Amino acid sequence: MSAPANDLLLRALLREPTTRTPLWMMRQAGRYLPEYRATRAKAGSFLALCMNPELACEVTLQPLERYRLDAAILFSDILTIPHAMNVGLEFEAGEGPKIARPVRTAADIDRLPMPDPEGELRYVMDAVRLIRRELAGRVPLIGFAGSPWTIATYMVEGGGSKSFQHVKRMLYGSPRELHRLLDVLARATIAYLNAQSAAGAQALMVFDTWGGVLTPAGYREFSLQYMQQIVDGLVREREGRRVPVILFTKGGGAWLPDMAATGCDALGVDWTTDLADARRAVGDRVALQGNLDPSVLYAPPAEIRVQVARVLASYGEGTGHVFNLGHGIHPDVPPEHALAMVEAVHELSPRYHGG
Amino acid sequence: MSAPANDLLLRALLREPTTRTPLWMMRQAGRYLPEYRATRAKAGSFLALCMNPELACEVTLQPLERYRLDAAILFSDILTIPHAMNVGLEFEAGEGPKIARPVRTAADIDRLPMPDPEGELRYVMDAVRLIRRELAGRVPLIGFAGSPWTIATYMVEGGGSKSFQHVKRMLYGSPRELHRLLDVLARATIAYLNAQSAAGAQALMVFDTWGGVLTPAGYREFSLQYMQQIVDGLVREREGRRVPVILFTKGGGAWLPDMAATGCDALGVDWTTDLADARRAVGDRVALQGNLDPSVLYAPPAEIRVQVARVLASYGEGTGHVFNLGHGIHPDVPPEHALAMVEAVHELSPRYHGG
Repeated sequence: MSAPANDLLLRALLREPTTRTPLWMMRQAGRYLPEYRATRAKAGSFLALCMNPELACEVTLQPLERYRLDAAILFSDILTIPHAMNVGLEFEAGEGPKIARPVRTAADIDRLPMPDPEGELRYVMDAVRLIRRELAGRVPLIGFAGSPWTIATYMVEGGGSKSFQHVKRMLYGSPRELHRLLDVLARATIAYLNAQSAAGAQALMVFDTWGGVLTPAGYREFSLQYMQQIVDGLVREREGRRVPVILFTKGGGAWLPDMAATGCDALGVDWTTDLADARRAVGDRVALQGNLDPSVLYAPPAEIRVQVARVLASYGEGTGHVFNLGHGIHPDVPPEHALAMVEAVHELSPRYHGG
Repeated sequence: MSAPANDLLLRALLREPTTRTPLWMMRQAGRYLPEYRATRAKAGSFLALCMNPELACEVTLQPLERYRLDAAILFSDILTIPHAMNVGLEFEAGEGPKIARPVRTAADIDRLPMPDPEGELRYVMDAVRLIRRELAGRVPLIGFAGSPWTIATYMVEGGGSKSFQHVKRMLYGSPRELHRLLDVLARATIAYLNAQSAAGAQALMVFDTWGGVLTPAGYREFSLQYMQQIVDGLVREREGRRVPVILFTKGGGAWLPDMAATGCDALGVDWTTDLADARRAVGDRVALQGNLDPSVLYAPPAEIRVQVARVLASYGEGTGHVFNLGHGIHPDVPPEHALAMVEAVHELSPRYHGG
């Protein structure tokens, strides 16, 4: 397999010069697109869509047909690993994930099998292989996983949560058990992400959606430590090229310097931190990805352009910026509004790269 | 009315010396207490409880009977102002607040009446007067209101929200309308809080629960600006004593210096920021209130003590710290666990005050 024709993303993630700022959107293959909703209806359920490589490939490519994006991201879910660990994952319509057998005791943790990325999770690797082939080198493919802490919150709570009572009870009441669970998840994630890059993923992202609910000390001990373990365990070169690793903790603006120190290549930044401040905080150690407030896409196109300009100006001159939303695109955003964002980045970003 | 026998809270909020660190708990009169649940059952509904001065007084005093707390806080809700503005507020069991007539257009905003604190909101002032009398000077009474931004999110969304789509659509799409709504709310809040202190509240707190979902620029423009207006509009002295004003933005750790610059006396800090960092960031301009992760109270009492010690040590020596949770106490916490926290503060804090 050859290098992508458009390698702006990979170059920006490695802080190599580019002629403009590359961009993609978190959850770019998603419910805001009618063609996605059609494919999902065909699949029957969200989980069935994730587990069908042909359909997962189809929805992965859909946003690239509409928009001039600089990356594809594997269509999947961060809960594929617990699903493969047999905890009884289901997605109820409009309800979010439910886990039938929450993991709360040492015995529960002992029972967790280590999933085989080319066994129970082969459907993910098949999707990666298929997408990579179908992309035919147009743009690079990003693989991903959830952070151990984030996955643990779902496994321990038995689904989404607002107060995180069960996992926090474990954190403060039996931290050794929680550490064992996090270590199992970190090891499973390393195998999973390495299999994704072996199958063709050209960059890897770790989503730490819930790291921001921890104290600073708790974040370092229960989330960052395991992302560090993952960064240390990843194969960093494939096909003669570095595989950039992106870490993203939502609500983790204060911890960007600690995250940069893991040896990852880039950090996702949500919209609550200015990119100028983030850049000052991390120096030239890592690239930054973000950070338009996804709700900006509710605004009229002219205002979207103003807000895109602000994000670009906040990062400023030079390489090392991948434009993105600060979180996943909302399902009720009009597709033309996403187009306004994409076009604005194409039009307004060259001036920050000597263009 | 005389000065409270225990004025530790007022002294710490004004950074005057104390012999130990005072404490109270956000939502200390709440569902975790069986006696609260009994009174609420008697009232019939949450809103009926808020609107009945005798019962509101009863639940306000309940936690003081159990715990050695250094403040009472008026039992009420941040949505009393929209309720008085006739938007059709209801609290559905287990569902949170619902607003029958959301405020989304200029015409909706024009229709909002300015509530009279001694008229439609007299039940709140009656509760303040009654609680102050019943407290008989034991500890000071804190009055409160929601921030204009936070109240606006409920009024525009029509209830709680995760994506804040309607209010953010207004923010990015018709910011002038949103500013008009926020100005109406700020003016109503000034009158409301001044009436509370006239009725006997000895400190005032503004809860900005949702400021943390904004960008830094959005926070300054749509939330902080209106808290500034409130700080500027409050009567700061009553009964010959300063009425300290506390601002609290959940998720606002990065903005503490901007908040301190409003001229308030103290800042609430949630558990995602270390008090040591917060103290460095604000210098000696304001006192700090917080910030034990409320989920620590799920842990066994011995661990609660360890975590209390950490919070006290993080703030360090000297006055200007009011111990509190970093957010409201969870409804499913055992009351003995709250006791362990209270006792630990009494026992461990004198050493930070030369004791």
